[in-house]
Amino acid sequence: MNQLYSSRLLENVVGEFSKLPGIGKKTALRMALHLLKQDEESVRQFGQAVIQLRSEVMYCRDCHNLSDTEVCEICSSPRRDHSTVCVVETIRDVLSIENTMQYQGVYHVLGGVISPMDGIGPADLTLESLERKVAAGTVSEIILALSATMEGDTTNFYIYRKIKNDTLIVSALARGLSVGDELEYADQVTLGRSIVNRMPFENTFRK
Amino acid sequence: MNQLYSSRLLENVVGEFSKLPGIGKKTALRMALHLLKQDEESVRQFGQAVIQLRSEVMYCRDCHNLSDTEVCEICSSPRRDHSTVCVVETIRDVLSIENTMQYQGVYHVLGGVISPMDGIGPADLTLESLERKVAAGTVSEIILALSATMEGDTTNFYIYRKIKNDTLIVSALARGLSVGDELEYADQVTLGRSIVNRMPFENTFRK
Repeated sequence: MNQLYSSRLLENVVGEFSKLPGIGKKTALRMALHLLKQDEESVRQFGQAVIQLRSEVMYCRDCHNLSDTEVCEICSSPRRDHSTVCVVETIRDVLSIENTMQYQGVYHVLGGVISPMDGIGPADLTLESLERKVAAGTVSEIILALSATMEGDTTNFYIYRKIKNDTLIVSALARGLSVGDELEYADQVTLGRSIVNRMPFENTFRK
Repeated sequence: MNQLYSSRLLENVVGEFSKLPGIGKKTALRMALHLLKQDEESVRQFGQAVIQLRSEVMYCRDCHNLSDTEVCEICSSPRRDHSTVCVVETIRDVLSIENTMQYQGVYHVLGGVISPMDGIGPADLTLESLERKVAAGTVSEIILALSATMEGDTTNFYIYRKIKNDTLIVSALARGLSVGDELEYADQVTLGRSIVNRMPFENTFRK
């Protein structure tokens, strides 16, 4: 492919962009040509932002979320309820839950789920730090918010066994029909669970 | 959206990526998290390549293609036929034709086509430089390789009128059925032209 780009600089950028997930050579070229049309200062900002992110970003000491500071904005906010900890797989899940604007507690990012098939065991996750947090006694509720998959369920159960004590409430995300689902197309397991775990009608009024 | 990313650095990068064509916030986030998993040196290279492209790339003095040097690799190559000039709209078209490996001449990048609707007139293109090239007398053939659209045809005709002289050959890309096309699904204009401009069967043997 060397000969085909008349510019080595262009070739470099196309090569770099096409390393990104889901980006092929054609899209990479389109991006490179787009940047060429921008003014030099904004392209410099683009490059600097990327370099700075990788070199300066940290993981929060408390919740292992991405952070610019040693303790992240959420963990250091006095407006959050520090006695409720929501356990999630990745920082992307933190963003998803934050976007709902329904949660005022703090998080704990596991960094994945237990998955023997992928060679991920409990030691690869931030479980020890979660146990320490619970042992410190300031946490009153742990919300398990992992994926509704076999690995997620396994990890949920593993955590439950590890941290369970007499005073701690351990809850899990509600499972049932998604908003907008039609019964006809809901899968049997989901539908079954939503019958077993039916709830007072008044609760469905809450948005 | 400020509050939602726990890291300002991450937010910056997501913002920058989502300015790229066809990239939304979700994909931008996926890219940013992908880069976070790479080692620091390769992310530095990514950022540097982008900055360097914008600050150092030039347009070839002769053909207006992107180039690292004042005259691009194609124009300065002794292996190319400098008496044949292929006129194209954009540098992307140069890449497309180079990829066919069927062309040994040089290029002239117009920078667009005449399009009154978009406010692009002859003065916005590199037509003057093309006329000078032809006037110098070293060119024996001009190949018009613009898009097969109304604007492309108009521009082709405009150029033809401007540069036509007794010794210069002005040719255009062949038009007809694409390789793999079925007659049934070919549009009428294309099919009509391919009957009128039918060619000796022997010519179809060439790949």
